[in-house]
Amino acid sequence: MNPEQSKVLIHDPTLRDGHHAVRHQLSAAQLRAYATAANAARIPVVEVGHGNGLGASSLQVGRAKVSDEEMLTVVREALTDSKMAVFMLPGWGASKDLDRALALGADLVRIGTHCTESDLAERHMGHLRDRGADAHGVLLMSHMAEPGELAEHCAQLVSYGATGVGIMDSSGHYLPADVTARITAIREAVDVPVMFHGHNNLGMAVANSVAAVEAGASIVDACARGFGAGAGNTQLEVVVPVLERMGYATGIDLYKLLDAADLAGRELMPAPPTIDSVGVVSGLSGVFSGFKTRVLDISAREGVDPRDVFFELGRRQAVAGQEDLIVDVAVALRQA
Amino acid sequence: MNPEQSKVLIHDPTLRDGHHAVRHQLSAAQLRAYATAANAARIPVVEVGHGNGLGASSLQVGRAKVSDEEMLTVVREALTDSKMAVFMLPGWGASKDLDRALALGADLVRIGTHCTESDLAERHMGHLRDRGADAHGVLLMSHMAEPGELAEHCAQLVSYGATGVGIMDSSGHYLPADVTARITAIREAVDVPVMFHGHNNLGMAVANSVAAVEAGASIVDACARGFGAGAGNTQLEVVVPVLERMGYATGIDLYKLLDAADLAGRELMPAPPTIDSVGVVSGLSGVFSGFKTRVLDISAREGVDPRDVFFELGRRQAVAGQEDLIVDVAVALRQA
Repeated sequence: MNPEQSKVLIHDPTLRDGHHAVRHQLSAAQLRAYATAANAARIPVVEVGHGNGLGASSLQVGRAKVSDEEMLTVVREALTDSKMAVFMLPGWGASKDLDRALALGADLVRIGTHCTESDLAERHMGHLRDRGADAHGVLLMSHMAEPGELAEHCAQLVSYGATGVGIMDSSGHYLPADVTARITAIREAVDVPVMFHGHNNLGMAVANSVAAVEAGASIVDACARGFGAGAGNTQLEVVVPVLERMGYATGIDLYKLLDAADLAGRELMPAPPTIDSVGVVSGLSGVFSGFKTRVLDISAREGVDPRDVFFELGRRQAVAGQEDLIVDVAVALRQA
Repeated sequence: MNPEQSKVLIHDPTLRDGHHAVRHQLSAAQLRAYATAANAARIPVVEVGHGNGLGASSLQVGRAKVSDEEMLTVVREALTDSKMAVFMLPGWGASKDLDRALALGADLVRIGTHCTESDLAERHMGHLRDRGADAHGVLLMSHMAEPGELAEHCAQLVSYGATGVGIMDSSGHYLPADVTARITAIREAVDVPVMFHGHNNLGMAVANSVAAVEAGASIVDACARGFGAGAGNTQLEVVVPVLERMGYATGIDLYKLLDAADLAGRELMPAPPTIDSVGVVSGLSGVFSGFKTRVLDISAREGVDPRDVFFELGRRQAVAGQEDLIVDVAVALRQA
């Protein structure tokens, strides 16, 4: 491989995706401590925010302990070398949130949509392009679309002005060959950097991230100790030395990275994520693990096996926002 | 693939390797509960014993709560369908331990040696062969030998009478390509079933096990919740559905397997294994993670970075039993 091909940019959403695991309750002191450690380790990009992104703090999905404005201010101050990224889901956040994030020093904005709804990103992507901001488009729950379809949506995002695109394995469903097929198709369709964001429900987050890089992805998302909801994300301090051992350069200092991970383990989370049985079932069924609590509650009420409910939700291609389907499925299973 | 190629035999050492994580303190009730659940899930082989195997219970490596005899009696009673396996390291256990295990109903005996010392298994393998017992030879710390050397040692084990051979990734050092090369070489050298036993220090235990199977291994070791020392073993209830999804048949009931894993999570372990920074470093350096406590203590005393000590121990190819090297290395680093 040539030197350019062998570089991988690590994007660290510990302070955004990890928020899901603690109901968005990280304090300013916690944000500052981790951002300082990540900056010292030379992690190139640190993402911060409410788990659901800019503007999402609400009674419905949970109020963050710290406002978007304070989060960005605190983290920006700590990141003397690393770039600061933010995430936004159209509908949760709006243009004013983007403007404020840029004013507070965000270097990169990611706009996320369901994998088949990239058109929802058009307006925001245009807004960011008009301001000369670096904006990436990312597709959530990407296992629900075939490689060709994902490639088309990524090309669409680039046509809107995205300077990078990527896919999230939101329910941790992929095996490495699935990732290879998708990243390969996307790489053929676009000429901007391609990102992969893994979850560990099937124990494959690190292997899937490696498969993505080998297929041409040049941005890998990973969180300290895998900090994130359910089975957690790709573990940052594991995937970095694994990629380095395989000949890819990340520019990250290993010992300081391990220090940052130790700090995260000690200061940010009650316990590191593990793969419990619900994690396995949500990964296998391809259902967002955020459904867990409701599936367990409704299954108990209806006297059905929650695992059957997950698999049926998977067959019905349920996505976040369709929580009502859980009741339909549980009642149907009870009656069957 | 033809139907025979697509079968994988799952070997479950939860009640033996998991013992390392709880200083060999599982009670008879815990052993019975898990063996009953594993049997109900149709896990084909359940291994039981002190972490270091038959005869190893001692002040030096820790006394087990329950004697070998009671362990085998309790588990044998619970396994109405599954086979019962035991493990022995020559020197820790002796022929009388093998005879007693066979008398108590062990269906399979594994004799383990360091990866380049298969000759230590000769006498015990012969002893077992004379009694008509099913005996497998397994090579520990197998990353310390090249594929060809491992294949020669496996062929040697078969010449002693082994009816199966395998390799353990004792320090969790392998990436999938390493496993593929080694299992391929071993498969070419022997015509008995080949086993792979993974550890998760680099987050690759499931991916490595899949790589082993794809290279021709037909026996995979895995523990409920990954129960084992340090970063833990290949997670049983994850690797089984992953293999099934890839078209391999294990014969295991998924829901009862998840029930067994839930029971293990609830009843056997204080917390499931996670990959901490020492786990990453011991995996990268290829050093047995059992060195952890002493490395931390001695490094603190000498005022050196324990990570440097691990990497230097790896360069010196330290193996279990060479704990004195830790002091040599730490002192050398302090003086350097």
